[in-house]
Amino acid sequence: MRDVLSQTLARIEPAAADAAAAAQAALDAKTKPRGSLGRLEEIACRISAIRRTATPGRLRAAVVVAAADHGVACEGVSAYPQEVTREMLSNFRHGGAAVCVIARETSASLRVVDAGVGTPTANIADGPAMSRADALRCVEQGVGLADELAGDGVGLVALGEMGIGNTTSASALSAALLPAEPVSVCGRGTGLDDAGLARKVEVVTRALRSNRADRDDPLGVLTALGGFEIAVLCGLGLGAAAKRIVVVLDGFISCAAALVAVRLAPGAVDAMVAAHLSPEPGHRLLLDALGLEPLLDLGLRLGEGSGAALALPILNASLAVLADMATFESAGVTDAGR
Amino acid sequence: MRDVLSQTLARIEPAAADAAAAAQAALDAKTKPRGSLGRLEEIACRISAIRRTATPGRLRAAVVVAAADHGVACEGVSAYPQEVTREMLSNFRHGGAAVCVIARETSASLRVVDAGVGTPTANIADGPAMSRADALRCVEQGVGLADELAGDGVGLVALGEMGIGNTTSASALSAALLPAEPVSVCGRGTGLDDAGLARKVEVVTRALRSNRADRDDPLGVLTALGGFEIAVLCGLGLGAAAKRIVVVLDGFISCAAALVAVRLAPGAVDAMVAAHLSPEPGHRLLLDALGLEPLLDLGLRLGEGSGAALALPILNASLAVLADMATFESAGVTDAGR
Repeated sequence: MRDVLSQTLARIEPAAADAAAAAQAALDAKTKPRGSLGRLEEIACRISAIRRTATPGRLRAAVVVAAADHGVACEGVSAYPQEVTREMLSNFRHGGAAVCVIARETSASLRVVDAGVGTPTANIADGPAMSRADALRCVEQGVGLADELAGDGVGLVALGEMGIGNTTSASALSAALLPAEPVSVCGRGTGLDDAGLARKVEVVTRALRSNRADRDDPLGVLTALGGFEIAVLCGLGLGAAAKRIVVVLDGFISCAAALVAVRLAPGAVDAMVAAHLSPEPGHRLLLDALGLEPLLDLGLRLGEGSGAALALPILNASLAVLADMATFESAGVTDAGR
Repeated sequence: MRDVLSQTLARIEPAAADAAAAAQAALDAKTKPRGSLGRLEEIACRISAIRRTATPGRLRAAVVVAAADHGVACEGVSAYPQEVTREMLSNFRHGGAAVCVIARETSASLRVVDAGVGTPTANIADGPAMSRADALRCVEQGVGLADELAGDGVGLVALGEMGIGNTTSASALSAALLPAEPVSVCGRGTGLDDAGLARKVEVVTRALRSNRADRDDPLGVLTALGGFEIAVLCGLGLGAAAKRIVVVLDGFISCAAALVAVRLAPGAVDAMVAAHLSPEPGHRLLLDALGLEPLLDLGLRLGEGSGAALALPILNASLAVLADMATFESAGVTDAGR
C-alpha cells in the first residue's frame, strides 16, 4: 500500500478546461458586455475548472491557520520574541486576531492548527529543520485536514499561518526552490530594521550552505528549511487540490508552502488562486513562479490568512454572478452580440 | 432662503483629522505589527474621519443605480442600441443585473432611480444636454436621495449608473473639467471597435466646440455635457458628503459625476473612496484629479455600481478590524512596540 502523500499526489487531476469553457459561455449570455466583469469572470471560470462543473454554485469557505515555532528565531530574525507564537495561538482561539475578525466578516469558518507551538524546529542556520519523517507527518496532517474540510462541504480554503521566524524559513525555501539569491527573497517581515534585515539575509545564506538541499527533492528541501506549519499548509494544498477544493493563497509564507506543493505535484497549481500581493519582496517571485496573478494589492503584510480571507467575498461574488445573473434572453435585453 | 444645492454645499465639513488619528492609535494597539494591514487601516481611518468618530462600527450599505437616456446615442457612440437602457432598468428592478447580484452578495440594499429613461437629453454634439434648471433639479434629486439614505441609517453609498451613451457624456465632462484632450478620455465603453472609438472622439470634440462650457462653472459644464443620471449622482455625492455618508465611487462615469461634485464643493472629496480602476482610459485621469487611489484593479468595465458594490466587504472588513480586534493588552500578547 502506498503512503498517504503518494496517494494524494496521484489523485490530483488536471483542471477541467471544458467546465471553464462552459462557464465562460454561460457568462457570455448574461446581461453585460462580454468580458466586462474582467477578473470576476476569469475567477468564476477557474473555480468551475477546479470543481469540474460549470455550475459550481456558492461555496462554503474555511480559513485554516497553522501555527508553529522556529528554532531559527534564536538568530534574532524577527521583530517579535518567540513567545508571541503561543500568545497569538491563544488570540486566534479567542477570536481576537485580525484573521478571526475578517473570517467572521466574510462568513468563513476558522480552523486553528497547532503544528508545533512551543516545540520549535531545529535552527535551519545550522542544519535541517526537522527529520524527513516529521516533514512527511506534517504534510499528511495537512492532507487529513483537507479530507475533513471536504467532508464538511467546504469548497474554498484560505491558507493562513503564524510562527515567529517563519518568513526566514519561507525565504530559505524560496531561495532554494526558485532558486534565488537570499537578498532578493528576504524582507522586513513583521518589521525588521536594516540591521535585522541584513542579519536575516546572512542567516538564510548560512541555512542554504548548511543544508545544501537538492531542489529536485521538494520534500527534502521542506525537511531542511521548512517550518512545521509550512509543511502542514503544503499538505493542505495538495489534499485540497486532490479534493477539488479551491486553495486561496495568502501572503509570502503560504505561497512558499504552495511552491513546495506544486514542485511535488505540478497540477496542484490549477486549484490555486492568489488572494493578494504583499510587500515582502519574495512574494512576487513566488507568484511568478506559480504563474498566479494576485486579486488584491492592499499593502497587507500580516499573514495569518488575513489577505486570503479578505478575498473570499470576491470569489463568492464571481460565483454569484455565474449562478444568478439574468441572461439577455431571460431578461429580454437586446444583445449587441460582442 | 437659499436653494437646496447652496445649502448642501454649505453643510459639507472638512474631514475630522482627529477622528482619523484616534482610529490609527486604536489600530496601533491591536494584535498585529503596526501598519501591517496596509490599506485596510487607511480605509478605516478615512471612514472614521468621514463619520467624525474613531468608533464608526459597521455601516449599512446601499447601492444607488441612476439610469437615463442620452441624445448623443444617435451618433452611434455605443455598441448597444438606446432601448437597452430601458431594458436594463427592468432588469435592475427584477434583480437580474450584475449589480443586483453583487449587492445581494455583499448585503447592500439596492435603489434604482429612473433619472430620465426614455426622455433623453439633447444631443451634446449639437448643444447643451439640458437646461440649467433641469441640471439643478437632478442634482437636488440626488441630494434628496442622500437625505433619505441617511434617514434609513445608511453609512456607505455606492454610486452606480446605466445609460446607453453615457461614457460619451462622461468623456466630454472629463475633457472639459480636467481639462484633457478628447482622445485621452475616450475609451471603448461597452465594446466599441476602432471605428466606433474614432467616432466617439470626434463626437466629444464636437460637443466641446458646440458648448464651449466654462470649466469654472461646474453646473454649467454639467448642463452642457451631462446626463440626467450623472447629475443625480453628482447631487447624491454632495448630499452624502453633507450627511457624513461614505461615497463609494465605481467606474469612469461615477467618477465624472464625482469630479463635478468636487468642483462644486472641494471638501466633498474627503467623503469619497475609489472602489476600483477600470480599463477606461479617462478613469485614471479622474482618480488622479480627485487624488484617490482605487482599492481594486480587476479589469471591471461594466458600470452599474458593480465595482463599488464589490468593494463594500473590504470597507466593512476594515471597520470590523477597527471595532473587533483584540489589543496587545486585552489579549496578553507581547508588543514589539513598532
